[in-house]
Amino acid sequence: VDPTTGRAGSTVFHETSTAEVAHTVGSVSDSWHALREISYLDRARALDAIADAVEGERDGLIGAARAETGFSEAKLSGELTRAVMQFRFFADVIREGSFLELAIDHARENATGPMPDLRRRLVPLGVIAVFGASNFPFAFSVLGGDTASALAAGNSVVVKAHSSHPETSDRSFAILKESLAGSLDAVPVGQVLGLQAGLDLVADPRIRAVGFTGSLEGGRALMDAIGRRPDPIPFYGELSSINPVLVTPRAAAEMPLELGKSFAESMTLAAGQMCTKPGVLFVPEGAAGDTVVGAAVAHLESLESQVLLNSTVYESFLEAEDRARTVDRLARLGRRSPVSTGAGFCVNARVYEGSIQSLVGEDLVELFGPSSMVVRYDPDHFVDDASRLLAMMPGSLSISLHLGSNELDGFAELREVIESRCGRIVYNGFPTGVAVAWSQTHGGPWPSTNSVHTSVGAASMRRFLRPVTYQDAPAECLPWELRDEFEGLPRRVDGCLQGGIGG
Amino acid sequence: VDPTTGRAGSTVFHETSTAEVAHTVGSVSDSWHALREISYLDRARALDAIADAVEGERDGLIGAARAETGFSEAKLSGELTRAVMQFRFFADVIREGSFLELAIDHARENATGPMPDLRRRLVPLGVIAVFGASNFPFAFSVLGGDTASALAAGNSVVVKAHSSHPETSDRSFAILKESLAGSLDAVPVGQVLGLQAGLDLVADPRIRAVGFTGSLEGGRALMDAIGRRPDPIPFYGELSSINPVLVTPRAAAEMPLELGKSFAESMTLAAGQMCTKPGVLFVPEGAAGDTVVGAAVAHLESLESQVLLNSTVYESFLEAEDRARTVDRLARLGRRSPVSTGAGFCVNARVYEGSIQSLVGEDLVELFGPSSMVVRYDPDHFVDDASRLLAMMPGSLSISLHLGSNELDGFAELREVIESRCGRIVYNGFPTGVAVAWSQTHGGPWPSTNSVHTSVGAASMRRFLRPVTYQDAPAECLPWELRDEFEGLPRRVDGCLQGGIGG
Repeated sequence: VDPTTGRAGSTVFHETSTAEVAHTVGSVSDSWHALREISYLDRARALDAIADAVEGERDGLIGAARAETGFSEAKLSGELTRAVMQFRFFADVIREGSFLELAIDHARENATGPMPDLRRRLVPLGVIAVFGASNFPFAFSVLGGDTASALAAGNSVVVKAHSSHPETSDRSFAILKESLAGSLDAVPVGQVLGLQAGLDLVADPRIRAVGFTGSLEGGRALMDAIGRRPDPIPFYGELSSINPVLVTPRAAAEMPLELGKSFAESMTLAAGQMCTKPGVLFVPEGAAGDTVVGAAVAHLESLESQVLLNSTVYESFLEAEDRARTVDRLARLGRRSPVSTGAGFCVNARVYEGSIQSLVGEDLVELFGPSSMVVRYDPDHFVDDASRLLAMMPGSLSISLHLGSNELDGFAELREVIESRCGRIVYNGFPTGVAVAWSQTHGGPWPSTNSVHTSVGAASMRRFLRPVTYQDAPAECLPWELRDEFEGLPRRVDGCLQGGIGG
Repeated sequence: VDPTTGRAGSTVFHETSTAEVAHTVGSVSDSWHALREISYLDRARALDAIADAVEGERDGLIGAARAETGFSEAKLSGELTRAVMQFRFFADVIREGSFLELAIDHARENATGPMPDLRRRLVPLGVIAVFGASNFPFAFSVLGGDTASALAAGNSVVVKAHSSHPETSDRSFAILKESLAGSLDAVPVGQVLGLQAGLDLVADPRIRAVGFTGSLEGGRALMDAIGRRPDPIPFYGELSSINPVLVTPRAAAEMPLELGKSFAESMTLAAGQMCTKPGVLFVPEGAAGDTVVGAAVAHLESLESQVLLNSTVYESFLEAEDRARTVDRLARLGRRSPVSTGAGFCVNARVYEGSIQSLVGEDLVELFGPSSMVVRYDPDHFVDDASRLLAMMPGSLSISLHLGSNELDGFAELREVIESRCGRIVYNGFPTGVAVAWSQTHGGPWPSTNSVHTSVGAASMRRFLRPVTYQDAPAECLPWELRDEFEGLPRRVDGCLQGGIGG
C-alpha cells in the first residue's frame, strides 16, 4: 500500500503458512552450525560484509521503502546509514571480545573447602525470532538492531517482516541472505510474513528467544503465546513510550523560541512515528511558557501535512483526535486545521494542552503520528509538579530535562525520580535519535520495555547469550579462549580484570 | 513439623494475610531509600556486617534448622558457612565495581552525524521478591544467594519464607533485620509466609522482580500470576534439573569402584534433595559398567535410611516408587528394601536401571530424595547414545563427563551437544556442590531455569539491575562514578576497558 495515496500496489505478498513457518525455522536451525563453527574474527568479517552489501544496494532499498512508507529520502537515507554502521559496530564489539564475559577461577581452598577450577563464557541461544517494526524499515527491521545483535552474538535468526513494508523486507532479506551465503557454508537466517506467522513463530519449539519492537497490544499477544509454551522463552519487547520533556522555569525564560521550535521538530520527525517521540512537553504557566508553546505551534503550522505509515496508524490518529475534542481537560492549540487532509494517510500535526492540576493518567498515552501534549505547571512548584507528572505516567524509554544556565545543582531529588522512570536521561535536548554506542540504553520500566536490557548498543547482544561454566576441565577440553595461555581478549582471572585491546 | 517423626511442633506459624503482604511491601518500598543513599563502600560494609551477625548466631540457627529439616549438623554447618561467605563475596564484588558496567562515550562525529555524550551505569530495580527453597534453609533461603545478590545490587527485598522451616526463617530474618538496622537508617527487608502470600507478593505493583528456587509447578504458578499483572516483571526461576553424569567406556574400565561409590555419595547428599543431584548415571553395558553399578548399590545399601524434608517430598517419593515398579523398562537394583521405613519421613535410597534403547523421556524426570537412574549404553556407541540421551531429556543445570586417561580429544562434537543442554559442564566429577565464584553458572536451558542468567556467583547480581544512560549531562548532574575525573572503578571509556583493582 502506498501511504501517500492509500492505494495498494500491484504486487501481492504471500502470508507465510503454519507449515512454511515450521519449515523455515527448521532450515534456519539446521544451518546454525555454519555460524557456530567459524571463528569470532570470521563472524565479525561476515557482519562487515553485510554492511558492505547493504551499502551497495542503497538506492534500491531506499526506493522500495519510499514507496511503502511515505518517509522522506533524507530520513530513509540516514536510517540506512545507521543500519550499515550498526553491523560494523557489532563487528567491532565482537573483535573487542568483552561480550563473551570470559572469567577464570583457578582451583583453590577457601573456608568452605576446596573450590574447583571454574571457567565461564557466554554462548549463543540458538534460533532467535526478530519482529520488524513498521516505523524503521531499516534500523529496526530485517536489517535492524535485533538481527544484527542476535547474529553478532552467534545466533541464527528468523525475521517476521512487517506487513507495512513487505517489498523493502524482501529486498533486505535477499541482501542479508546472499551476503551470509558468501561468508558461511549455510545460511542461518529466514523470513516469514503475516500475523499468524508471527504467533506460529514464537510458539515453535526451536525458537530460543524473541526480539520485538512494536505496539503494547502486539507485544502482549506474543507474551501470552510464549506463556502457553511448555518451555517459556525470553521475550525482549520494546513496547510503548511517552518520553516526557521537562523544562525548568529558567530554561523556558532563557530560550523559549529555540525550545518551542526544537520540540516541534522533534515531535514531527518521521511524521511523529518514533518510539522516542516527545509525547509530553512540560512547561511553566505564564509568559515564558506561553512563548515556548507559541513557537512550537508556529513551527507546526509552517509544516506541510505528513504521511502516516499505514491505515492502522492513520485510523488510530483520527480516533484519538475525535476523543480528545470531547475532553474538557484538554485544549487544542493553534488554528485548528483538521488533522486529516483527505489524501491517502496524510495528516496535519496537532498539539493539545492541559494543566498538571487537572490532567489524569489516561490523558497521557502514546500516540503514533505528529501529535503531542503540552502540560503546564506552576513555576513555583517545578520539582513537585514534575514528580507528580512522572508518577501519573507509565515508564518511558527516555526523559529529557532542560535546565537554565547555572541551574545545575538543585535537582538531585528530581533526578532520582527521573532515573526510576526511564532508561535514558537527556539533558538540554530532545529524545529522538538513539546513537548506536557502547554506553547506550534503549529500554526502561514497563511498558517501554519488559526487560532489564537495552535493545540498542553493544550491550543489546547480552539478550541473546547465556553463560556456560566449565568445571575442572582438562585444558584440551576447553574452548581456546578459556585456556590459561590465551590472552587475546579481556578476561577476569581469579577476580582480576585483565587486558584486551583497551586494557 | 519434625521430619524425623512427622509430628508437628508446638509453635504455630501465622500465614501472612493479603493485607499484611501489602503492608510489608509498602514498608520495605518506603525504606529502600536507606540503601540507595549510602555509598557503595558502605553497602559492602553492611553485607560484611550481616555475615558477622549470622556467624555469631551459628549455633541457634543450626539447631533450629536441624529440628525442622532433618539435615545433619555437618550439612547445615557447611551450608551456613557458605551463606556467610556469600555475603562477604558480594561485598567484595561491590568493592571491585565491575557490576555497575560503567561506560562513557564522549561526544564525537561519525558517519551518521554528531553523537552525543553518553554515560551508562546499572541501577537497582526496587523491591525484589525472593522465594526461599525448602532444601537449603540457609544458602537458598532468607539468608541465601537471591537475598544477598539483590541487596548487593542495591535493592530492597521481601522474602517469602519456606513453610518447611518457618522457625529457621524467623531467626534468620531477625538477624538480617537487626544487622541492617545497625547499618542503615531504615530496614529495607521484609518477610512473608504462606502460599497465598507468595501469590499476593508477586502481584503487588511495587515488586520489581522475583527470584525463585523451587519446583517447576510452583514456578509456573508464579509465572502465570506475573503474566496477569498489568506490568509483567522479570521472573528468575530455578526450577528442575536432572544433571546427567556421563561415563565413557574407558573411564568405567579404569576406575569403576571409585565412580560407583562417588556417584552413590553424590546422589544421597542432603538425602538426595539437591537441585544438582545426579539423576542419571550413564554407564556402558558389560563388565566395567556392572562393576560401577555394583559399587554404587553396595554403597547405597551400607547407608542408614535418610530423612526427607516434608510430607510433600515424602509422598512424591513413595508415589514415584509405586509407579516405577509398574514400568517394564525399569529394573530396581539392589536388595529391594522398601523405600519407606515407617518412621517420620525416613526413606531408603533406591536406584532403577534401564537401557538407552528402551527408555523414554517420561522415565527421566527430577525426583527429590535419594533416588537416581542408571542408564546403560552400548560401549561401541558412546557418543551417539549419549547424544540420544541428552536429546530425550529436558535441559539441566549441569552435565558431568567422566573421561579415561588420555581420552581428551575425541569428544568435541559431544561437548557441543552438552553445552547446548546445560549451564555447567563438570569434568571427572559430580554435580553436587556449586562454588560461589566469579566464574560460576547456576542456570541452564528450560526447565532448569527460565532465564539467561546465573543465580549463583558474581553475575547473579545482574538479574536485579537495569541500565540507565545519561545523555549530554553537565558534569555536575552526573553520578560521581560517571564523571571524567573519577578513576576508581573499572569503566569502558570510548570503547576501551579501563582499570579497576585488577586492571
